[in-house]
Amino acid sequence: MGDKQNGLSRREAIAIAASGAVVAGLPGSASAKEAGQTVDVIIVGAGFAGLSAARELRRAGKSVVVLEADERVGGRTKAATLAGETIDIGGQWVGPTQTHLLALAKDYGVRVVPQYADGENIIDIAGRMARYRGETPGLADEDLAEFGAAVLQLETMAARLPVPRPWLAPEAPELDALTVESWLLVNVPGKPARELFRALIRAVMSSESADVSLLALLSYMASAGGLEALIATRGGAQDSLFEGSVWSIASKIAAELGGAVVLGAPVSRIEQDAKGVTATSAKGVWRGARVIVTAPPAMAARIAYAPPLPARRDGLTQRMPLGNVIKVALAYDRPFWREQGLSGLVISDKTEFGPWFDRGTSLTKGGALVGFFDGAPARRWADRTPAERRARVLDDLAEYFGEAARHPVDYVEEVWTLAPFQRGGYVSVPGPGVLTGFGSALLDPVGRIHWAGTETADAWVGYIDGAIRSGERAAKEVAGAP
Amino acid sequence: MGDKQNGLSRREAIAIAASGAVVAGLPGSASAKEAGQTVDVIIVGAGFAGLSAARELRRAGKSVVVLEADERVGGRTKAATLAGETIDIGGQWVGPTQTHLLALAKDYGVRVVPQYADGENIIDIAGRMARYRGETPGLADEDLAEFGAAVLQLETMAARLPVPRPWLAPEAPELDALTVESWLLVNVPGKPARELFRALIRAVMSSESADVSLLALLSYMASAGGLEALIATRGGAQDSLFEGSVWSIASKIAAELGGAVVLGAPVSRIEQDAKGVTATSAKGVWRGARVIVTAPPAMAARIAYAPPLPARRDGLTQRMPLGNVIKVALAYDRPFWREQGLSGLVISDKTEFGPWFDRGTSLTKGGALVGFFDGAPARRWADRTPAERRARVLDDLAEYFGEAARHPVDYVEEVWTLAPFQRGGYVSVPGPGVLTGFGSALLDPVGRIHWAGTETADAWVGYIDGAIRSGERAAKEVAGAP
Repeated sequence: MGDKQNGLSRREAIAIAASGAVVAGLPGSASAKEAGQTVDVIIVGAGFAGLSAARELRRAGKSVVVLEADERVGGRTKAATLAGETIDIGGQWVGPTQTHLLALAKDYGVRVVPQYADGENIIDIAGRMARYRGETPGLADEDLAEFGAAVLQLETMAARLPVPRPWLAPEAPELDALTVESWLLVNVPGKPARELFRALIRAVMSSESADVSLLALLSYMASAGGLEALIATRGGAQDSLFEGSVWSIASKIAAELGGAVVLGAPVSRIEQDAKGVTATSAKGVWRGARVIVTAPPAMAARIAYAPPLPARRDGLTQRMPLGNVIKVALAYDRPFWREQGLSGLVISDKTEFGPWFDRGTSLTKGGALVGFFDGAPARRWADRTPAERRARVLDDLAEYFGEAARHPVDYVEEVWTLAPFQRGGYVSVPGPGVLTGFGSALLDPVGRIHWAGTETADAWVGYIDGAIRSGERAAKEVAGAP
Repeated sequence: MGDKQNGLSRREAIAIAASGAVVAGLPGSASAKEAGQTVDVIIVGAGFAGLSAARELRRAGKSVVVLEADERVGGRTKAATLAGETIDIGGQWVGPTQTHLLALAKDYGVRVVPQYADGENIIDIAGRMARYRGETPGLADEDLAEFGAAVLQLETMAARLPVPRPWLAPEAPELDALTVESWLLVNVPGKPARELFRALIRAVMSSESADVSLLALLSYMASAGGLEALIATRGGAQDSLFEGSVWSIASKIAAELGGAVVLGAPVSRIEQDAKGVTATSAKGVWRGARVIVTAPPAMAARIAYAPPLPARRDGLTQRMPLGNVIKVALAYDRPFWREQGLSGLVISDKTEFGPWFDRGTSLTKGGALVGFFDGAPARRWADRTPAERRARVLDDLAEYFGEAARHPVDYVEEVWTLAPFQRGGYVSVPGPGVLTGFGSALLDPVGRIHWAGTETADAWVGYIDGAIRSGERAAKEVAGAP
């Protein structure tokens, strides 16, 4: 051992080890067998952010523990079995500019396969249903022109923002005083274009346009490289998915980390002092030089911090709610919609449920569809019974795909809004005033506490790729810290 | 003992008692001496809501325990000593329609004294300073006309809302899609009137007008009986204050409740089953038929619930941040501003700190001023040092009251935004989309869990009077529950 360990002097390291021994014996700590140890870095959360941070820190020669509240890894990604095949019932897609996720998939030998996008999409907005091909929504010409002009206006505003710190833009306070809905009311007077926007906000941020700050939407767009990148299949965020599941990558990273990943270990308390941090979990107490918290702000708020967090950070955690989402996947004996010339994509403001996508790939045996209750529909349906949701899903599907849709051979759902350690998805959505008032607290470490998670990403906020980027960034922060 | 106890059958009561004995022995519970007992109703929080609920339930013959996280009672009210006199450093005022607080003051023999309001007020908005008398802000005539017209427009909208459930109004979604700021930008084009509105929102809701949903502001107004009632001194919410402190009323109720109030007992977990509820706190485990949680939603979110809360309630707790406020009181050897013909009231958009009020009463020996950092200024100053805040306060005061203001004989402050169990004040402020999307969860019990606190009041939301009303209402709910 050299003069320095974990960037601390030997004297500090010894003090940490000693005080680690003390805290492990505190009342309320787990049995000696389960009690934690002293590591270089404690990571809270074994989603893609936490696992990526752990992987990077291990490579840099640091010892880590990843404390995961749930009994599984993956965070907002999760595998399910549908008609005997493994699928994702959480995050599932990857796009060509999501290079960090693509790199991980390559490293762990998980094959990327294109999203099925042949045939015609269905759009049913403002009472007008149409079939169309490709990425340009099938609105009537004048509505499409209005939609396009509004997109251009948004893209122009978004391109000026200094992501990941959009609150630094001179125009930020003005943009952050408006909801997306109030912007739409003024700038998109036509009902079809406006309703399509509302449906897309719902699909992309799992929130209603009244809930979202205009600055937050623009910042989200900028972080992805534009609205087109968010909503497109080919070349966009829904370009491809994974053989088996994207979750399998998380699982493989966790396997590599071995005993460093501790499941069923919700962290209830994080204490820091001049020498290090102590994390108390249901599986014991860990001591480290630094901690990386990857939970989204609203969930990180449910940990007790000593000393208490600064005003700006605590305030942020009170103001970054997760969107609302329920994801459903259905298997059929065959992809009958393809026989009707349909791609499986449906964008609708008439049904509760949607958008819909074909979940099949070249590897899928039968047919499969996947869809979402997003935003207000998710709120309306989350507290109802699975049977009620299923009945509604089948009604909605039959509307566009006919009676055959009523007879799936398998059906799985995940009510992310009820998931105890996520309580929503896909991402935390700032309302007006939040990014300008509290945004810096997303990224600024608090002493020995560092923040990660897709909300803190320098690109692709809200996506798995952003989660990975954030974990890698936090690992660098910690590795470089004194 | 009759056939029924706590509205439960004898068999249920025995089961509860038995299972209470079991949970008290769980790992992590306090020592036998400290371990809790079985009561009819567990109340979380010893602010005015919790204490009022406890008082009502006791009167109805129920046994209660009030578990308070802090080492004091009072919640968002708190006493401090200023130049040897007891004052309020939290909520302090009462108005003539705040009948529940007035009744309590009478019951406990705490004298109500009028807020000092003689002399001239100062207004310094949009670069124009003026002195004026009475309740009508001293703007230039045309600005005052614009301000008055806007107030009338707001009052008209507010009067139509069905408080305490404003989300039921047909126009609610439209009003809840806008921030107050975006409404001001369209409806109050003149800078002086608009800046005055911004200053008043800051003073009344401790928030920026960009943070607040228009529906939330209107609902807040309706709950108080109008904007005038919120902002006025004479006849309004700042009409009078209390001899000693309003906090002394909380203290007297707590004394009456005796051992039923347990301090230093933050509740970490609430479990409910078919037979009752179990609350785990740092001071032991209590079992009861029902629980009343009085903590504001963002703080109630930091308790773990088993089974997990429904989507709507959990979602609400992610979306009701507390405003930001720092309160400062200063004592002087004499009220020198009175000698200058000033009332002590200052409304300003130039200084960080304000509004200011004379804190003296007929009972005060020297002079005293009280003032606030509200909203964005509170965020900017909460994480700075007490010395930095004090220097800024004295600079701001000297701006209006002259150099004499730089020499207080005593100075106290409370940074409510840092208070560990409040993390803000005076009230939780819904942004756009929150009341329409989640508002019903403010009031709807979740099984055996009932909600109180000023945010849930049927009138005077955000005020001590509302807290009392909410506690009394929750007590009735519980007493009437099967």
